[in-house]
Amino acid sequence: MHGWYETEVRVRYAETDQMGIVHHANYLIWFEVGRSGLCRQKGFSYQEMEEGDSLLVVADARVRYKSPAFYDDLLTIRTQVAEIRSRSIRFTYEVYRGSDNTLLADGETVHLVTDRSRKVKSLPQVFKDKLS
Amino acid sequence: MHGWYETEVRVRYAETDQMGIVHHANYLIWFEVGRSGLCRQKGFSYQEMEEGDSLLVVADARVRYKSPAFYDDLLTIRTQVAEIRSRSIRFTYEVYRGSDNTLLADGETVHLVTDRSRKVKSLPQVFKDKLS
Amino acid sequence: MHGWYETEVRVRYAETDQMGIVHHANYLIWFEVGRSGLCRQKGFSYQEMEEGDSLLVVADARVRYKSPAFYDDLLTIRTQVAEIRSRSIRFTYEVYRGSDNTLLADGETVHLVTDRSRKVKSLPQVFKDKLS
Amino acid sequence: MHGWYETEVRVRYAETDQMGIVHHANYLIWFEVGRSGLCRQKGFSYQEMEEGDSLLVVADARVRYKSPAFYDDLLTIRTQVAEIRSRSIRFTYEVYRGSDNTLLADGETVHLVTDRSRKVKSLPQVFKDKLS
Repeated sequence: MHGWYETEVRVRYAETDQMGIVHHANYLIWFEVGRSGLCRQKGFSYQEMEEGDSLLVVADARVRYKSPAFYDDLLTIRTQVAEIRSRSIRFTYEVYRGSDNTLLADGETVHLVTDRSRKVKSLPQVFKDKLS
Repeated sequence: MHGWYETEVRVRYAETDQMGIVHHANYLIWFEVGRSGLCRQKGFSYQEMEEGDSLLVVADARVRYKSPAFYDDLLTIRTQVAEIRSRSIRFTYEVYRGSDNTLLADGETVHLVTDRSRKVKSLPQVFKDKLS
Repeated sequence: MHGWYETEVRVRYAETDQMGIVHHANYLIWFEVGRSGLCRQKGFSYQEMEEGDSLLVVADARVRYKSPAFYDDLLTIRTQVAEIRSRSIRFTYEVYRGSDNTLLADGETVHLVTDRSRKVKSLPQVFKDKLS
Repeated sequence: MHGWYETEVRVRYAETDQMGIVHHANYLIWFEVGRSGLCRQKGFSYQEMEEGDSLLVVADARVRYKSPAFYDDLLTIRTQVAEIRSRSIRFTYEVYRGSDNTLLADGETVHLVTDRSRKVKSLPQVFKDKLS
């Protein structure tokens, strides 16, 4: 369960702000890109979870910013499943810049498993197996 | 039909980019804020249209940028229904900065009326009446 | 120092995602809108801080999501200066929906004071006074 | 000058809206990703243009939406330099989904060349050569 899965993103101009660095909200979007990549590398699309009526709703998010990212940087999002409980999953993340191998940020998100009507439910065994 | 409806937005820090001005994609989002404001001022929420299975899907969008917007600027989005056809609506927009009454951008969007399954349909008379 | 400052935002269509709720990254943007509002209510613009070569760079961010926000909801962002140190500031936030007075999320951000060359510096006394 | 340059993007969850499709403003961001990719494939980074005091400020943007993009779709952004004038550049774009080779959107943007103080200037010959 505790392996890191890597996904690359290149910083978009639209992600910068007037400080000349990437706006901090984008890291949550990159973490999500990392989760999508992790699912794909584990053999399924997160879309299949939603089609199977299991949504991963974010309950908690934390980002620690170490060093800024800049336009056109090529970044690696490292994602791992840190903990699976019956009704929630915790992911942890690290964002690295490839060119100088600098850790730019790390963080974590906690997700509740719900159905489409937003009721908390148990994670189906098939996805538990895939994510573990 | 050809009256202007005004909605105010204040420029967010996240909307700026490393040029020190608002990133150009945000004007499409502000146009949408203008459409929401127009609906509200005409006595309904666009949400009611979607709940009544009439979605306004964007088919065409155009923005002409005249002068940059800056962080913390207070802007007025002027929106009007330019044309209603049986299965489409065209809106036009102007974005002004209040402090110096400068026109920052204008543009237009064309929307197809569809149902949830993305099939083009006629705009229900009740919304035609409200928007006219 | 520990008073809450309130700023209103109306949920934009672009802020929703395919779950039908507001995407979680937007809360960091709303927190920033709350900081801007707090500064304005305390008699200055955050822009003046940047022009005086004092940037508030985000070092840490945390959001706890309690209940989803929906398109067109009118929200109140409550912001307070939780702690001022010589080289950092901590803000805390609460996001409420006005119509049913529901707490949707709370969180905090920690900011380092830096100059334009990204060197950490002391917060100038004039802004310390204004923010306290 | 009239060759197409291709850049891939995978649709992010944050780019969807409550219609279940990609929000239309993201196509302008993808066009920009396409421009960055075109520059990189022509042997330079757009960042170098800015460092050489030549900014490409968007003056006009147009998008025609043909078919929706969905979460996790792998897209190809095709970009070409359509016209270079002394003080402006026009790019055209096509967005395709790879899996079914569907054209999702096309469009164009016109950019003025300015210096950092936002004064229009001539495009330096070195970049004219690279872009042609």
